[in-house]
Amino acid sequence: MDKSGAAAVDYRGLGKDVFEFFTHRTAFNSAAYLLPTIESMKKENPRLRLLDVGAGVGSVSATLAEVLGPDGHVVCTDLAPSVLPQAQALAESRGVTNISFQTADVHALPFEDGEFDIVHCHQLFGHIRDPVAALREMLRVTKPGGVMAAREGDKETEIIWPPLPGVLKWHEFDSNVAKAHGGTLTAGRQLLAWALEGGAKRDQITVSYGTWLTSEEATKAVYARGISKVLTGPTRQNALKFGLSEEDIDEICRDTLAWADREDATWLMLQTEIIIRK
Amino acid sequence: MDKSGAAAVDYRGLGKDVFEFFTHRTAFNSAAYLLPTIESMKKENPRLRLLDVGAGVGSVSATLAEVLGPDGHVVCTDLAPSVLPQAQALAESRGVTNISFQTADVHALPFEDGEFDIVHCHQLFGHIRDPVAALREMLRVTKPGGVMAAREGDKETEIIWPPLPGVLKWHEFDSNVAKAHGGTLTAGRQLLAWALEGGAKRDQITVSYGTWLTSEEATKAVYARGISKVLTGPTRQNALKFGLSEEDIDEICRDTLAWADREDATWLMLQTEIIIRK
Repeated sequence: MDKSGAAAVDYRGLGKDVFEFFTHRTAFNSAAYLLPTIESMKKENPRLRLLDVGAGVGSVSATLAEVLGPDGHVVCTDLAPSVLPQAQALAESRGVTNISFQTADVHALPFEDGEFDIVHCHQLFGHIRDPVAALREMLRVTKPGGVMAAREGDKETEIIWPPLPGVLKWHEFDSNVAKAHGGTLTAGRQLLAWALEGGAKRDQITVSYGTWLTSEEATKAVYARGISKVLTGPTRQNALKFGLSEEDIDEICRDTLAWADREDATWLMLQTEIIIRK
Repeated sequence: MDKSGAAAVDYRGLGKDVFEFFTHRTAFNSAAYLLPTIESMKKENPRLRLLDVGAGVGSVSATLAEVLGPDGHVVCTDLAPSVLPQAQALAESRGVTNISFQTADVHALPFEDGEFDIVHCHQLFGHIRDPVAALREMLRVTKPGGVMAAREGDKETEIIWPPLPGVLKWHEFDSNVAKAHGGTLTAGRQLLAWALEGGAKRDQITVSYGTWLTSEEATKAVYARGISKVLTGPTRQNALKFGLSEEDIDEICRDTLAWADREDATWLMLQTEIIIRK
């Protein structure tokens, strides 16, 4: 843990294979609540500047850049320098050029006041020690008239059906790792409270709720294969260090893949989405 | 508990004041997932017949009748005969006339095979002993080419913020009463599994997910006032029988109203919605 209070760098100590697992996230499946606002702002000003904070593998950032269009620009940031070349490679592979990459700590963003039209994060506040300070800092770099947007899952609402033992084991492991890194499992329910504490007024805030992941064929396969790949790749060693046994890992992989083959497979958690008009 | 396995009649033994509390439910806030399907079916056939099962106070049924339009018709049913005059009075007060009322047990519906274009229920399967049998029966009375639709909350995902003690106490009480009446707190996550077990094929089923209730000003006030009214009205005696003390009730009322006054108030649970095309 570094002194800034930021946590969960390098994806909680997991390896490069985790990056691939996260790249199925796009602006369309992970920031859909924000897209109508972006479209409407674009009509006023096609040269929008968007800051994506804690962007990780940058797959959401890259699709946000596509949504902004050629006149817009995304600054994709993460606390972990190691992830940014991955994010850059991903954007390049998709032909996205209106994007730049920069290491940044959300608790002390290296940007001027009001530098961005849109400041966005996805699944960030649940992984850091001081969400209120982070939110205040994100609002600081938002232009007056611009928006700050965030989406946070509430991991305590996570449901898994059918409740195969290995899948529940993964859920428990993932929750424990998040907590051990100073995160919270109740970010979704606290997001509105954090926004108010961070200086936003209630009438500036639009709140909506969603669910995620899915029971859809394609997504559940991606998810199950992703977990299995993570745990059979280089990350296996890290998972062992975090307390899983070889048998646990085998059970998780087996049951997660079996879960994805089930027609009644459902794996969801509640998501809170806020848009703050500054 | 009657022999049919049905449970939770008379709103879990609570009184008439509970009826009023539920009337803020409409097709627009509680069956929105189904409305596009109804609109599209209406274009083919304006004389749609819709069966609403376990409709309780009938506020959703009445708005479904409005959505069907004057050529359509809703049959509003509940296991509890005592609730139907309430439902009828509600429809009359809203000027809804294309609706009729009938006592019916979902486990043995008094209708012919394929009698309805649309068969709907809301928050039903979580309160009965045999959701699969109920679902099979609902599918039986659905016309080939018609649809069966259900929406079920998953009470174990319920989140409350801020976590005021009295509000948590209400949540616990409400959950315990539901369980004591043979219901389940995990209906949302099981709904797809029940549909498959009840005879639907996976490619007939469209699944979506929502959240409910809200952090919106109007709804949270309705909810908080509703709980407070229930517990200070005739139902207070029933609540005492179910194990709450006078002090518990006072704390629940006080904290629930205080919760509704909070700008960061959030009270939600995950909802699963399915539409089965027969």
